[in-house]
Amino acid sequence: MRQIPIIIDTDPGQDDAVAILTALGSPMLEVIGISVVAGNVPLERTQENARIICEWAGRSDIPVHAGCARPLLRPLVTAEHVHGKTGLDGVALHQPTLPLQSEHAVDFIVRTLRQRDSGSVTLCMLGPLTNLAMAIVKAPDIVARIKDIVLMGGAYFEGGNITPSAEFNIHVDPDAAATVLGCGAPITMLPLDVTHKARGTPARINLLRALPNRAGNLAADILTTLERFDVQRYGVNGAPLHDPTVIAYVLQPALFSGKHVHVAVEQGSELTLGATPVDWWGVTGKAANVYYITEVDADGFFALLAENLSRLP
Amino acid sequence: MRQIPIIIDTDPGQDDAVAILTALGSPMLEVIGISVVAGNVPLERTQENARIICEWAGRSDIPVHAGCARPLLRPLVTAEHVHGKTGLDGVALHQPTLPLQSEHAVDFIVRTLRQRDSGSVTLCMLGPLTNLAMAIVKAPDIVARIKDIVLMGGAYFEGGNITPSAEFNIHVDPDAAATVLGCGAPITMLPLDVTHKARGTPARINLLRALPNRAGNLAADILTTLERFDVQRYGVNGAPLHDPTVIAYVLQPALFSGKHVHVAVEQGSELTLGATPVDWWGVTGKAANVYYITEVDADGFFALLAENLSRLP
Amino acid sequence: MRQIPIIIDTDPGQDDAVAILTALGSPMLEVIGISVVAGNVPLERTQENARIICEWAGRSDIPVHAGCARPLLRPLVTAEHVHGKTGLDGVALHQPTLPLQSEHAVDFIVRTLRQRDSGSVTLCMLGPLTNLAMAIVKAPDIVARIKDIVLMGGAYFEGGNITPSAEFNIHVDPDAAATVLGCGAPITMLPLDVTHKARGTPARINLLRALPNRAGNLAADILTTLERFDVQRYGVNGAPLHDPTVIAYVLQPALFSGKHVHVAVEQGSELTLGATPVDWWGVTGKAANVYYITEVDADGFFALLAENLSRLP
Amino acid sequence: MRQIPIIIDTDPGQDDAVAILTALGSPMLEVIGISVVAGNVPLERTQENARIICEWAGRSDIPVHAGCARPLLRPLVTAEHVHGKTGLDGVALHQPTLPLQSEHAVDFIVRTLRQRDSGSVTLCMLGPLTNLAMAIVKAPDIVARIKDIVLMGGAYFEGGNITPSAEFNIHVDPDAAATVLGCGAPITMLPLDVTHKARGTPARINLLRALPNRAGNLAADILTTLERFDVQRYGVNGAPLHDPTVIAYVLQPALFSGKHVHVAVEQGSELTLGATPVDWWGVTGKAANVYYITEVDADGFFALLAENLSRLP
Repeated sequence: MRQIPIIIDTDPGQDDAVAILTALGSPMLEVIGISVVAGNVPLERTQENARIICEWAGRSDIPVHAGCARPLLRPLVTAEHVHGKTGLDGVALHQPTLPLQSEHAVDFIVRTLRQRDSGSVTLCMLGPLTNLAMAIVKAPDIVARIKDIVLMGGAYFEGGNITPSAEFNIHVDPDAAATVLGCGAPITMLPLDVTHKARGTPARINLLRALPNRAGNLAADILTTLERFDVQRYGVNGAPLHDPTVIAYVLQPALFSGKHVHVAVEQGSELTLGATPVDWWGVTGKAANVYYITEVDADGFFALLAENLSRLP
Repeated sequence: MRQIPIIIDTDPGQDDAVAILTALGSPMLEVIGISVVAGNVPLERTQENARIICEWAGRSDIPVHAGCARPLLRPLVTAEHVHGKTGLDGVALHQPTLPLQSEHAVDFIVRTLRQRDSGSVTLCMLGPLTNLAMAIVKAPDIVARIKDIVLMGGAYFEGGNITPSAEFNIHVDPDAAATVLGCGAPITMLPLDVTHKARGTPARINLLRALPNRAGNLAADILTTLERFDVQRYGVNGAPLHDPTVIAYVLQPALFSGKHVHVAVEQGSELTLGATPVDWWGVTGKAANVYYITEVDADGFFALLAENLSRLP
Repeated sequence: MRQIPIIIDTDPGQDDAVAILTALGSPMLEVIGISVVAGNVPLERTQENARIICEWAGRSDIPVHAGCARPLLRPLVTAEHVHGKTGLDGVALHQPTLPLQSEHAVDFIVRTLRQRDSGSVTLCMLGPLTNLAMAIVKAPDIVARIKDIVLMGGAYFEGGNITPSAEFNIHVDPDAAATVLGCGAPITMLPLDVTHKARGTPARINLLRALPNRAGNLAADILTTLERFDVQRYGVNGAPLHDPTVIAYVLQPALFSGKHVHVAVEQGSELTLGATPVDWWGVTGKAANVYYITEVDADGFFALLAENLSRLP
Repeated sequence: MRQIPIIIDTDPGQDDAVAILTALGSPMLEVIGISVVAGNVPLERTQENARIICEWAGRSDIPVHAGCARPLLRPLVTAEHVHGKTGLDGVALHQPTLPLQSEHAVDFIVRTLRQRDSGSVTLCMLGPLTNLAMAIVKAPDIVARIKDIVLMGGAYFEGGNITPSAEFNIHVDPDAAATVLGCGAPITMLPLDVTHKARGTPARINLLRALPNRAGNLAADILTTLERFDVQRYGVNGAPLHDPTVIAYVLQPALFSGKHVHVAVEQGSELTLGATPVDWWGVTGKAANVYYITEVDADGFFALLAENLSRLP
């Protein structure tokens, strides 16, 4: 079996943690490295969290690169009200020994895309898109070498989560998002429209908790913490699980379905900043730039998570 | 029985026609007059159409007032691709004899609200909100005298119809919409989120066609024409019926349900112009300004239309 | 001699007062009426001030019409820091007996333009352009009947006065200004670029104070008060005299010179709201819509004021 | 004498060429390296032009680093109508042998600021500010190590040159400009307000042409070509000389004067995109972020150019 080479760009973040663990548990994926960005919590926390998560998976060999500490143009907005002050609320954290690479995440992305075979590397984007946008502006030649940009972000049929109009990852750096969506590379987008159909119901959380290893329990603890937040706020049963859908899509795209459409990003108005209007009915005449996912086999998705998490310590 | 005094502000428009006929068929409503605005088609058509529709209902006594021929600030956008060149595609039109009032629609609205008991008049808004916004700017004292502004417009959980982000009535004059939504009077909003649940299925159209009078057949013809447009475009069965929900809500509010929320209007960006972000989960901290309807008993709604249309010639 | 028929639209305001007095002192002008708007101070003050000023001139026959109490779309910004709480800081005010007309200023403008010969009436605009913009939206037919719109407003080579980018009259209602500048009627614009060359130096103020009548002394008192504000703030000698340039231009256009250019209005950004970029070098390719005045014979201008003020009581 | 270490960031560009030659002719400056950006012409031309200019000065030792080929967010706007297709209209070009460094200009800036003593390096910015903004986003720690950012850009009392509102360098990348102006480092800005007072009159051009070396003649040829453009367009005598004011300010700040003020950048509106409103009178209450130059001793400035150009081959 030939492994799929991926870079994970991430701002862990609770659901980022489950996504990274899932990826590291899969024999199908070659995690070339992890590039870290500010988002759910500031960069000093996200880069440390990324190293902690690799150590949970017993993978001290993974190169972790710190990237941008701020969005392209705007002050950083964080989501500590969801993820807690550490970014990994609900689980105990240790001081990681896995070192941070000296190479900046932007340069890691550029170098990897130039060194690897063109069209071979998939970028798994779990946070604000700052690092990738910076890489594209700095080195436009990399765009033609990307296999696919699979990103968690955006919302259309669902309203937003950080504002009535916008999903968090896009809202934090809408300018980076617009740069990425307009770059011309293949893009697969996993918006709230699909992640709200991938809810961590008690039955699904129990599936993970029943795993005999630590990784399963960590994932179960995280989902339980997330659920508490959503139940308190929205009164629904089962929190949507966002970032792991990116890894699941790369592993098993048949679990998902969507449509090739044009997606734009609102950059010009505070009110709707980071909204991602989707031309679902083709009324704008603009060419499709995104494969926009709206459906998921949620039970299949959670089974895939459990299967891969089970391979970890 | 005490009648409910209403003003109908309208840009007929196929679904406007069904709404006006329904209102004129109801013994519960006193239609004080009709104020006309440019929208679905230009003003010279909409004012003539309003007079034709009154004559269809045998109501040459209704005062019809022409209003604004253009939005507050922007060039007029029309929807002839939906409503046809006349605005009433699918039915035969005659030259009306019912005269146009010399009083401008804006002044008719101001005068009526000042003359009638404060808190007695409901404004039924079926088109762009230009006339009412002009009245509010010209005579701010009228705001406190309005019983309810019941308007068809906006979209949140559904995407837009004229653009991916915006519903037609709000998109045409977003500045008027913002003026109205911010005025402080009670407002009930019937957005695409509810009208897309009020579809003219074949069974429901047949209900109208089976009526023994001309009004039923006119309504059935109009719905059939609308359905052809939507089936062609969206491939769904049964076109949403927008404007009549306003009249139905005034007649029988129990058919509908929604939530008191804050609704804003995007005025500052071309991309999302006329979007109406709804603070459904209360994340913005802004006070509710709208009763935002999302649910309808669709069969009850069509039964109500049939009942009232049946009383007409 | 045939008189020039004018409407004065105004928000008095100290310099408005000098402008109105100058107009009422001129045998060359027929002041058909005064339409009042909110601006320098709220409408309840500006309409009363307009009536007081007419009484100072002994002209209780002038119809004074109250208009819009607020801009088209935005909350009212006033300039009490310049004009004082009454709007006429520096002079004693009485309770006027001249009655306010019942007709709204917007309707007065529309009716006058329709009744008078087409192309005969000059509109002298001394404040925010709300009333005229409302008239244009309500009754687009009036545009073709306007002889000239002569307005005090805007800034280009000079920076703004209310913000670094914008002059007060345009800033208060940029949407009205854009509607007026885009309407197609002849427009003459007297921006800060010219009014800053019409400064009330001590010598020029003395010219007015030396007049043997009350009007001269009122004008001198007003200019002295204005100068105190500007000297305190900007450290210059002699306050610019804004609104009277409009009346002077109508009386004696040869005192002024400018260029036919395209002028736009910034409506879309808080930072530069109300800026009036002038295409002085013809780089935009847009057709000229304004005669933009940049030069004035300042001594001739003050002599003209003195001459006309001297005819009043 | 201790040399002043500078980085020149540039998009040559005719006036960039005169600026670079002046810097290379001065014994007071240590040109650590040149970072190149797209602007007046695309990057493939500007990087080659930078190398040609160094060779004209006999300085094949200068490290030239290619940087960003595009602005942060927007499509590149160039100014070939001014600078010609090559960017150096009016002079003959050769194929340079001076090699391009492999290090990206953004990394060169970051590395230099980190390696040199904190507070020692002055950044001389002659083009759009993309490279520096990218460096700031990528490595925020460098900001505290900058001695001064001396930049040619902006306009306030003068109108713009590329649009009625905006100067070219800021207009091309307003987002980069806003990032730089907001970064917190000391900034000196040389806007059109001063460069329009540094005109290449025939007498001043002759001063350069009379120099016995090639560099003087090159500078004279460039100024003659620039003058032709401006005379044709604006009918004035003597083209403003923009970029060399940056080098002259670093060499002899006493030639210039200005004021510490707050300067913002318009990013949100097409109409005024790249405008730089200056709070000259302190009305916004915002803290000064820029030393904004408005006056120059023009003859002293041209004498300084001549003196330094005279030292070159």
